This record gives sequence, C-alpha cells and structure tokens, in this order.
Amino acid sequence: MGEKWVLMKTAQTPTNIAVIKYWGKRDETLILPVNDSISVTLDPAHLCTTTTVAVSPAFQQDRMWLNGKEMSLSGGRYQNCLREIRKRAREVEDKERGIKIEKKDWEKLHLHIASYNNFPTAAGLASSAAGFACLVFALAKLMNVSEDESQLSAIARQGSGSACRSLFGGFVKWIMGKEDDGSDSLAVQLVDEKHWEDLFIIIAVVSSRQKETSSTSGMRESVETSSLLQHRAKEVVPKRTIQMEEAIQYRDFASFAKLACADSNQFHAVCLDTLPPIFYMNDTSHRQVLVYICWIISYVEKWNRSEGTPQVAYTFDAGPNAVLIARDRKAAAQLIQRLLFYFPPKSDTDLDSYLLGDKTILKDAGLEGLEDVKALSPPPENGSAQKYPGDVSYFICTRPGKGPILLSNDKLALLDPETGLPK
Amino acid sequence: MGEKWVLMKTAQTPTNIAVIKYWGKRDETLILPVNDSISVTLDPAHLCTTTTVAVSPAFQQDRMWLNGKEMSLSGGRYQNCLREIRKRAREVEDKERGIKIEKKDWEKLHLHIASYNNFPTAAGLASSAAGFACLVFALAKLMNVSEDESQLSAIARQGSGSACRSLFGGFVKWIMGKEDDGSDSLAVQLVDEKHWEDLFIIIAVVSSRQKETSSTSGMRESVETSSLLQHRAKEVVPKRTIQMEEAIQYRDFASFAKLACADSNQFHAVCLDTLPPIFYMNDTSHRQVLVYICWIISYVEKWNRSEGTPQVAYTFDAGPNAVLIARDRKAAAQLIQRLLFYFPPKSDTDLDSYLLGDKTILKDAGLEGLEDVKALSPPPENGSAQKYPGDVSYFICTRPGKGPILLSNDKLALLDPETGLPK
Repeated sequence: MGEKWVLMKTAQTPTNIAVIKYWGKRDETLILPVNDSISVTLDPAHLCTTTTVAVSPAFQQDRMWLNGKEMSLSGGRYQNCLREIRKRAREVEDKERGIKIEKKDWEKLHLHIASYNNFPTAAGLASSAAGFACLVFALAKLMNVSEDESQLSAIARQGSGSACRSLFGGFVKWIMGKEDDGSDSLAVQLVDEKHWEDLFIIIAVVSSRQKETSSTSGMRESVETSSLLQHRAKEVVPKRTIQMEEAIQYRDFASFAKLACADSNQFHAVCLDTLPPIFYMNDTSHRQVLVYICWIISYVEKWNRSEGTPQVAYTFDAGPNAVLIARDRKAAAQLIQRLLFYFPPKSDTDLDSYLLGDKTILKDAGLEGLEDVKALSPPPENGSAQKYPGDVSYFICTRPGKGPILLSNDKLALLDPETGLPK
Repeated sequence: MGEKWVLMKTAQTPTNIAVIKYWGKRDETLILPVNDSISVTLDPAHLCTTTTVAVSPAFQQDRMWLNGKEMSLSGGRYQNCLREIRKRAREVEDKERGIKIEKKDWEKLHLHIASYNNFPTAAGLASSAAGFACLVFALAKLMNVSEDESQLSAIARQGSGSACRSLFGGFVKWIMGKEDDGSDSLAVQLVDEKHWEDLFIIIAVVSSRQKETSSTSGMRESVETSSLLQHRAKEVVPKRTIQMEEAIQYRDFASFAKLACADSNQFHAVCLDTLPPIFYMNDTSHRQVLVYICWIISYVEKWNRSEGTPQVAYTFDAGPNAVLIARDRKAAAQLIQRLLFYFPPKSDTDLDSYLLGDKTILKDAGLEGLEDVKALSPPPENGSAQKYPGDVSYFICTRPGKGPILLSNDKLALLDPETGLPK
C-alpha cells in the first residue's frame, strides 16, 4: 500500500421496464415494496449504463461523475449501496502488477466512480435503475464479492427499487420478501433473453421535458392516502404475478398484453386515487402529454380489437413515455408504420435520428426515408387521419436484452487508468 | 267511463349530483347498485324537469313527449316504472267534474306524458335522474298512490338508478339495500335544503358536445373487469358514506370537500382500471376535455392548499362537466372570479348568457359586465395566467334545492287539458 496504482473495473448494465408495476414502499429506507413486480430487461445495445469503478491508495475521498459531471455521493441511497458492498469485499490480488488488497483494507480505500448513460438521463427511461445496478455490479467485481446476482440485487435495491431488476437479462421478478431487514427482497430471473425472442419493444419518447412527480414522494402519498393501493398490493398483484409468470413461460402474448395493459392502467388508477391525485404533470405546458397517453392507450386497444387478438401491449411508468411491446417482427413493423403515420418527425428531423436502436424494423415496414413516411396511408382500423407532428421527440426500437456484463476492453473504461479521473 | 275527459297532474323535480358516487350494478334489470351513494339536490329553479301526466278514456295508447318531441315508451325502463306505479294506483274521484276512476280501471286506461328540462338534455346534467323521478312522482299524484317518497324512489330507481335520489331535496342517500327484489334499495333524505344553506354550486358546462360512454355499459364493464371496483364497493364506500353523513350533519366543509374530491377521483380511478379503460371520450375531437378536467382538479387542489382549508370541492360524473361546490358565498365569489379569469367567454358571448342560474354571485364578485371580467387579475395562488376562452360553454350557479313539487297552476301544464296532447 502507499503506491500510486489504480485498480479498475468497467461494467455495462441494462435498464428495465416493469410489466407488473412497483408502486408503494413498506419501508422507505430499505426500499421494500408492497408487492412483487415483473420487468423485461431492455437490450443494452440500445439502452444501458456503463460504469467504471476504481480504487487507489492515492484517492482522497469517494468521488463520482455522471455523464462527465461530478456529483455528490452523500445521499443516503449511495451511502447504503457503498456500505453494503464494502461489507462484502474480499481479498483482491493482481500478481502481475504486484497489487494486493486485504479484506480489511477496503474500509480505508476510497473509490472513484464514473457512469455514463447511452440515452438521455432526464427522459424517464429508468436511468437510476440501470445506474445503481451497474454501480453495485461493477463494485462487486472490483471487490471480488462472492455474492450472486440475486444477492447483489438486494443491495442495488437500496439505491433505487427498480435497480434490483436490472441485475438480470430477459424477464425478471422482484420478490417483495417478508423480512424486516429486507434480506429476502431481491430479484430473480424468470427466463433469459433468448426465451421470448419474438418480442419487439418500441419506446415513444415525448417532446416535453419530463417534469417528474418524484416517484418517492408519489409512492409515499399513494401509500398514505389511496384506499385502493393496499387492495391492489394484497389482492390483485399476487394473482396477477402468477398469471404473468405463466404468460411469459408459455410465450402467451394475448395474456401477456392483457395483464401488462391492465397493470399499467391500475397503477395509474392508484395514482388518481391518491390525495391530491398524481397526474405526472400539473402545469399547463404539459397539456398535450396526458392527451397523448390516452390517445396511445385508446388507439392500441382499438387496433388490438380490430385484429381479433392483441398485437401490441402498452405500459407507462410514472412519466409520459409510452412503452409498446409488439408480439413479433411483423406486428412491430405494422406498429412503426402506425406510429410514424400519426407522429411523424418535424420536417427538419431525418428518419435516422428519429428512430433509434434497432433500425432493421424500418426495412420491414417499407420505410427507407422520410418520403416513405409521408406516403403512409391511414391505418384502416382508425377513422381519424389527424397527425401530431412533433408530439414525439424520437422512438427507440429495442428487444428483450441481456443482464450486466464486465467489459474487459480497457479502452471502454470511463476513468483514466493512471489518474483514476474521468477521461 | 267512456266520456272524453282528461285528468292531469304536473310536477317539477330537481336533478342531483352525487358526492359519493354510484358506479356499478349488482342487478341490471332492477338497477340495484353495488354500494350506497349520497347526493346533493340542485335548486329546481335552475335545473329541473317538469312533467305533465294525463289520463283519459279517449287515449288509445301510452305516449310520451320529451322537450316537445314524441319518443318511444317501449324501453324496459319506462315499462318497469309504468307497471310498478300502475300496481299501486288507487281510486281517484273528481266530484266537481264527475270523474271517477276505480282502482281496477287503471290497468285499461292509457297515459300521456310530456316532459321538459329547463337545461340542455345532452349536456350530461343528470336529466334522466330528474326525468324518471318526475315521471314517477307525477304519476303517483295522478293515481292517488299512497306510497311515500322513499317508496316512490324505489320505483324511479328502476328507470334510472340516480333518479331515486331526486325524490328529495337537500342531501339524499341511496341505500343500496340487501333484498334480491330491490324493495329495500331506496333513497332517504339525510337533511333538507335548509340545513346547509351556505353552499354554492357552480357547474362548468364544457363546449364539447358530450359523447357519452353509456353509463350502463361502462358500469357493466367496470363490474366485470375492474379488480378495484369490488374493493371500493365493499370496503371503501361503507366507511366513506358514514364519514360523509357526519360531514353533512355537522356542516364540516373540510371533511365534505376531502371526501367528495376523493370519491370523484376514485370513481375515475375505477374507470381507468376497467378493461379497456373508460376515458369518457375517445376520439381526438375531445382532446381538450380530459386536459380541462385535470386542470380543474389540479387548480382546485392548489387553491385549497394555498388557503389552508378547503374553499371548494370538485366532483365529476361520467362526463366532462365540472361541478364545483363552494363553502359559502364569499368562496363562491372568489371561485367565479377565478373561473371567469381562466375560462372567459368568447368575445361574442355576453355575461348574462355565460353565467346562468343564481346571478347574484356576480355582484359579490364585482363582475357587472364583460369589462370587469377582462380586468380580472391573475389569482395569486397560481403561477400561470394562461387563459382558455371557449373551453367552457357556460356556467350555472346554483344551490342545494328542494325536492319534487306538484304544480297547481294549470297554465304550467305541458299538455292541453282538452286534448291531452302537447300544448
């Protein structure tokens, strides 16, 4: 010890979208939920957090940079994660470089953390879920922690509840647990990302800068004032979770879509049953957002009815971005045709920057450029051909994706291997 | 019998607004609800139905005219009301005119019915409630029925559920009842219209022609698909009803407002929890209505918080008209200032046709004409001064009102006393 070496690990972690929603805590400090939840992990190629963690005897204090900007680690949620992971740190030896860290040394050593999202942090795409999952996963690797992903998820959970579900790929269940200490409130993988490869996930990111009702305060108010929340948690979700697990197991899209849409709506119903009701935005500059949400819901319901069996499921978190899950590539191509018909880009936006992620779907939809978008016919199932250019900022097309991975290529590290500072 | 005489009665019946909502039937034919509900009766001077019923041996069949236009009586709901009231008909004698109808004659005699609403029928202002209550009340008088208002309410209920609450003035409770035959599902008066005279009720009727999700089908879908509805009916409403009765008894406006707003929001939450969710409008021409509802709710919540104690309660039925209940004349004057600031009339509308009902409130608000409306300052409690001219079609200012009355002035009859046809 005493030398100037820097030891680093870099990890990449996906974000996730709940299809059975988490809303309401039974313990705010430990972040213990009032019900189980189920999510699908999104392909990290399109939405992920990359985090480099470094340790060095030269570091004077714990420091963190998010998207290149230093930020405070003093918050309780960061402190809880750091404390819990340090407790589990073990001996680390790099014989080649002659570095050895004893278990007891970890208490004294400081950390540098750099994190980067490949998607807009403010856009309400579960950046804190991917972020805390990546922090905990990377630190576990750096510190040679022996706990498995489920056990790590119980630590990430203390940073941000939904983060625990980002420790796995595919479909993931956050088991609420029963213990007061939260030790059994953790995530398990239901199926991996290969199990249901047909699915396509299209996210419509709306133009409005999201003005979040903080989830933490929103949940607290719902727990305190909504008489429907406890019923949902105790009676509805337990049954729905079992049904959703079955739908996922058997790739039963009709059941999956019905349950996901119903649960998204019920979560919003609980928000409306909160005093005062939570609308996700309450100033007039966000007027169009709520209308847009209702439009999407009504439209998907109408389209699904016209097809006889659901083609698309919708789900909304505590923000206006619509997450649409299509049953297969064909349905996704039809969906993107419909979305681009009703929500075309503004005239100064090209298609390449309007549909991010998996762009192969554009070819299936016969959309090679803006000319093709303009030539789209109104969908037969809807009477109205009114368009809303500019209402959507951009779309992201993605798939169910894999869980956290360690990046061995040092070039992808966000911290300088010599100084331990952001590159 | 055999002569050409016509015997008539004319009645006037108020409409009512639920402050604990009725949503969901346990029996669709008898119209038996899944929970109790409580309403306030609105002053019939501003909103009422007038109905003239006539009987004559010359009438060939039962006929009805609504607002001057003949309509069919073949619907089950009309038939149920007519059958039930005929069962209870008794001997009627008009010695002066030498008319005598035996109890058994009523089965053979036909009726003419003319009904008129002093407010727009399509505007979603509970016209069917006032209408069926008035029909049953007028027929009961014509047929010398001995049943009291509560017993009559159980008949009106079979025409339209909420009609049973229009048989009384003041605050009224519809007791859901337990019997399979519906005999104990009826309305009782909690307090009369003199009990809480401070209240002012301002209804904002929106421009959009209401496109109703039929309440009947909406309720049915909620009962079948909403997992929150049964919980609301069995667990929430029973407690809330007791609290609301107390709030009314003690004129406790803070509790009254909290309960009324919470129950309106919960009713809408159940609609959102229905599959597919009920939004009250689902085409794009009604875009602004939902936004407007959220605006009103957010605004009232904000204002109430800024005042420290609630000044105004809001409640919405299955339509976009906001019903705002102000604690007293002062709060009503402040409310009307705010409403007219944010929702001014279009330039071609004069104030007299923009605020209907009790116009004395305009003087309290210092609003003698459109010039005064234009000169209004933005309310201090709200940051935004954005106005929405044209969003509201008109306002109605009213009060808690009295129950049904018989009109003895023959000039007010809607049927010609000689022919029994509409005047």
